[in-house]
Amino acid sequence: MDVFEALHTTRAIRRFKTDPVPDELITKVLDAAIRAPSGGNGQPWSFMVVKDAGLKRQVAAHYRRAWNEVYGPAERAATMDSRVYQSATYLAEHMAEAPVFIIPCIATPGGRSSFSAGSSIYPAVQNLMVAARGLGLGTTLTSLHKRYEAEVKAILGIPDGVETAALIPMGYPADGVKFGPVRRRPVGEVAYLDRWGAAYRGQGLST
Amino acid sequence: MDVFEALHTTRAIRRFKTDPVPDELITKVLDAAIRAPSGGNGQPWSFMVVKDAGLKRQVAAHYRRAWNEVYGPAERAATMDSRVYQSATYLAEHMAEAPVFIIPCIATPGGRSSFSAGSSIYPAVQNLMVAARGLGLGTTLTSLHKRYEAEVKAILGIPDGVETAALIPMGYPADGVKFGPVRRRPVGEVAYLDRWGAAYRGQGLST
Repeated sequence: MDVFEALHTTRAIRRFKTDPVPDELITKVLDAAIRAPSGGNGQPWSFMVVKDAGLKRQVAAHYRRAWNEVYGPAERAATMDSRVYQSATYLAEHMAEAPVFIIPCIATPGGRSSFSAGSSIYPAVQNLMVAARGLGLGTTLTSLHKRYEAEVKAILGIPDGVETAALIPMGYPADGVKFGPVRRRPVGEVAYLDRWGAAYRGQGLST
Repeated sequence: MDVFEALHTTRAIRRFKTDPVPDELITKVLDAAIRAPSGGNGQPWSFMVVKDAGLKRQVAAHYRRAWNEVYGPAERAATMDSRVYQSATYLAEHMAEAPVFIIPCIATPGGRSSFSAGSSIYPAVQNLMVAARGLGLGTTLTSLHKRYEAEVKAILGIPDGVETAALIPMGYPADGVKFGPVRRRPVGEVAYLDRWGAAYRGQGLST
């Protein structure tokens, strides 16, 4: 698949088939993740691959609880696009059915990590999701489980000095769920030339 | 270009031709960046495209100063691979010669951003760099300028409530500088199955 097609069609997939993901594909996805940059090439990452049904259920229960706390209140739910809300609610209720979870982690020897530390793990996370797309596998980047970071770490035996960066369910998209274009504000609204506020008017801004 | 080839050969490029980058390509790169996910699809990003020579020089001066403070000391330099050190020193001294800087920024209405906020900007940063690779453009993700965050923001007029996430020089690789494989610890050393410490032994781990 062409790189631009992959980048442009990696949308959040929240409904999965229960078919297992072959280990060879999981490996390919991880092998793309680790090609990402990190500060000083320090590669402070680890990747938990969770396939065990019991462990998935335990982790998913914390995700669902966090979802209900944050998005259960009607006023918060009302701020979301209704289609996305429906899909994200489905995910919260069925997370454990995704055949595999990938939980990227980052070493935080000095305690809780900083904004800058994100530059050493989220590029790898994005590589992972784009590579999955290239293999026909759906993913979505979630982090609500971090409300129960300690509990999730305990379930998986993740030690002190390591923090989870995301909870990424992965699997083949359910019937009727398609990769495709994402909805974003266009480049012309978010790019500036030389000085803040001076709109960047490059060529091809219709894309 | 195939998506896996792009992901696997996006290495840090630190020496650039001075040839300008066509606006159409800059737009394509930004248009791939904004396809990345962000929390609640909030897209809290802005992208500064800096082409003005005087502004590049001012920003680059702060980068060089930060480099000298951090990597000038011999004991710190000694911790780096000598080839990388040489290349990174070259970049610090010649940053302003890159034809364009991209400075992704994130809105931080509540003050300084957190580790989790990184999940809403660094996926876009990685998309940007992979897309550049797909177009034959080199980049490298740097953040040393953040030692002079306030000064860099003042140069470009970046307001309060917005934080820079990276300083990415971009251009065609200099003669003799090639894209290609990156050096990383293999998947078998950084992936665990179900429980921390239980090596993930997927198929195809020789890759």
